[in-house]
Amino acid sequence: MENKPHNGNIFARIPAHIPDEVFETIVGDDPVKIERIISCGHATPEGHWYDQDRNEWVMVLQGRADILFEGDREAITLTPGDHVHIAAHRRHRVTRTDDKQPTIWLAVHYP
Amino acid sequence: MENKPHNGNIFARIPAHIPDEVFETIVGDDPVKIERIISCGHATPEGHWYDQDRNEWVMVLQGRADILFEGDREAITLTPGDHVHIAAHRRHRVTRTDDKQPTIWLAVHYP
Repeated sequence: MENKPHNGNIFARIPAHIPDEVFETIVGDDPVKIERIISCGHATPEGHWYDQDRNEWVMVLQGRADILFEGDREAITLTPGDHVHIAAHRRHRVTRTDDKQPTIWLAVHYP
Repeated sequence: MENKPHNGNIFARIPAHIPDEVFETIVGDDPVKIERIISCGHATPEGHWYDQDRNEWVMVLQGRADILFEGDREAITLTPGDHVHIAAHRRHRVTRTDDKQPTIWLAVHYP
């Protein structure tokens, strides 16, 4: 008989409808936060850039997402397993996420 | 044309032979370390318990692993996507990992 961890599974409990991106804290908050993000066709609003006080390490586990760093000509495409490090205050935006399935991200925010 | 991130893919560059467990720092070290661990049939030596100064959040992304916490009667089984939080100094050991394929773990160590 197997004990399943009560801590959860990153692929579980995906909402059937995702009108807004879902941000769920898995553990921690300050100074370190581990977070699951669920997107479905979402993108950062035109002209808006994320500019974060903390470093962020992010990995896509399902779906697909394109991230553009300010000053770059082309977005980076993340598919399952791809991870990218975003230094604090490195301005970036998500230009596209898969609109056919939920994109599941794991993000670690740290000082 | 797609840019792939130079930061890597968690499923890439798996050694063909894994005589010893592989511990690779992805980013950081102190106080926060994000690490990939690759096991293949490995287990913590009998009678040995991990007792860590930092908290650890760990997720299995491929394969399977069983973790036993000291004082528990049964191990917890982690399969892809399962994650578990291990508080600092909570003694634990890995009683088994998949011996038919590499088990890929993501671990985040933080104060």
